[in-house]
Amino acid sequence: VTGLHRFPMHQPFALALLALAWLAVVPAAPRAPSQEAAAAAFVCPPCGAECHFTTYPKGGACGVCGMGLVPLASVPQVGVLLFPDADPLSATLVLGILARANATRAFTVADVAEPLRLGDTLELRPQFGFADAPPLDVLVIPDGHGAWEDELVVQWVKTSAARAQHVIAVGSGCLVLARAGFLAGERVPATGMLARMGKELAPALEFDGALPAQRSGKFLLARDTGAAVGAALEVVRELVGEERARRTAEDLGLAWTPEAR
Amino acid sequence: VTGLHRFPMHQPFALALLALAWLAVVPAAPRAPSQEAAAAAFVCPPCGAECHFTTYPKGGACGVCGMGLVPLASVPQVGVLLFPDADPLSATLVLGILARANATRAFTVADVAEPLRLGDTLELRPQFGFADAPPLDVLVIPDGHGAWEDELVVQWVKTSAARAQHVIAVGSGCLVLARAGFLAGERVPATGMLARMGKELAPALEFDGALPAQRSGKFLLARDTGAAVGAALEVVRELVGEERARRTAEDLGLAWTPEAR
Repeated sequence: VTGLHRFPMHQPFALALLALAWLAVVPAAPRAPSQEAAAAAFVCPPCGAECHFTTYPKGGACGVCGMGLVPLASVPQVGVLLFPDADPLSATLVLGILARANATRAFTVADVAEPLRLGDTLELRPQFGFADAPPLDVLVIPDGHGAWEDELVVQWVKTSAARAQHVIAVGSGCLVLARAGFLAGERVPATGMLARMGKELAPALEFDGALPAQRSGKFLLARDTGAAVGAALEVVRELVGEERARRTAEDLGLAWTPEAR
Repeated sequence: VTGLHRFPMHQPFALALLALAWLAVVPAAPRAPSQEAAAAAFVCPPCGAECHFTTYPKGGACGVCGMGLVPLASVPQVGVLLFPDADPLSATLVLGILARANATRAFTVADVAEPLRLGDTLELRPQFGFADAPPLDVLVIPDGHGAWEDELVVQWVKTSAARAQHVIAVGSGCLVLARAGFLAGERVPATGMLARMGKELAPALEFDGALPAQRSGKFLLARDTGAAVGAALEVVRELVGEERARRTAEDLGLAWTPEAR
């Protein structure tokens, strides 16, 4: 099982916790598997059942649904970054669409193990910490304040985005990418705070209020939740084809027209 | 603070837990406030800050944002039902829109305190248990299998829907309402499993695959996630006016045309 969380980064605090744990004779938390171990693991292929967060050391049949296990590295891994002021809609909508397409293993990643209360309305427990998340094929950075000022978040995004094949950033998620060294000179869709303050926060980018979405190589930039729907469906299309993307949109009752190529 | 969870309903199990707690000299969990106590409480009015789940015994200024507290009963309470097979998108999208409109206090409610892993992708921790949730003005029942067969859920929906001014049900959420005694003779928007099996599961209802949404008194029935967007915005319109609903849709980049009246 890889669904383990990293402890908070602060070493002295973590050590103090460990010491307390020993004093109280509480068993130590299981160690998070390294990324290397996870990369060699097997999982159930995307199938709509709830069995994709158990990993197995070798191939065989899934213990839940019976399907033949496949190497973890063969299933596109979609990680949605969570942080304290992340916008709940842009995070859950993109995650939900990518999961519903039934072509990936989609989960949340954060720097904390405890549930985050997003928008004072929705408590989400991150599935992985930064250290134990598998390497991502799709990185999703939701809208939300403050993430671009968190050095640890920016560093994780830098590494994850460099490796990923697709990066979806919604609203001020673009600022996190900018601080990680991406998008220099790029036109970025912007509204509200981002349109007003973007240039000051990320001088290398151009902000454009008239643009709902922008594509630049692996980066899909969405101005808002509505535009993020299109970005998520475009990634589905590129991963598993237009027919699956169209059916996913139809199942969800969401209007979708593929981007002109 | 009213953000407490009820223990599982099974009395013998709860008693056993209590006994264990005493044996281990663990302090007893704080008692969930009764609905009566909550009804007499004060909260911060909807303001966009993260301070709406602290309740105060009397009026004054909010300890977080400084706004004048108002009686809890004066703020529309929006409760989204969670259950193990709830569809994550229909749950989080409706919740997120109602929260974003900044006119209600929106939260999740479930029969468990532990996070639920919806769609094998999103771990949500319910904010309230059935017993400690405040009386709801808006009840939201997401799509998802099995809830209509859970007697405890059906009973809670029966009580909550009878009191609420608006009830949004997505997809098979309508089956929960049917089992709770509502919607008899009603045409219900249906797709997929619901279109095929609905009549068998709820003989008193009519299922219509061509209908994206249906309004019947306080009940707003949505076929899918896309139709649920319209239902959520319609409730915003009825609670705080069309201008706020239009601005909410625009902020989110979601297309919205108010229903013809």
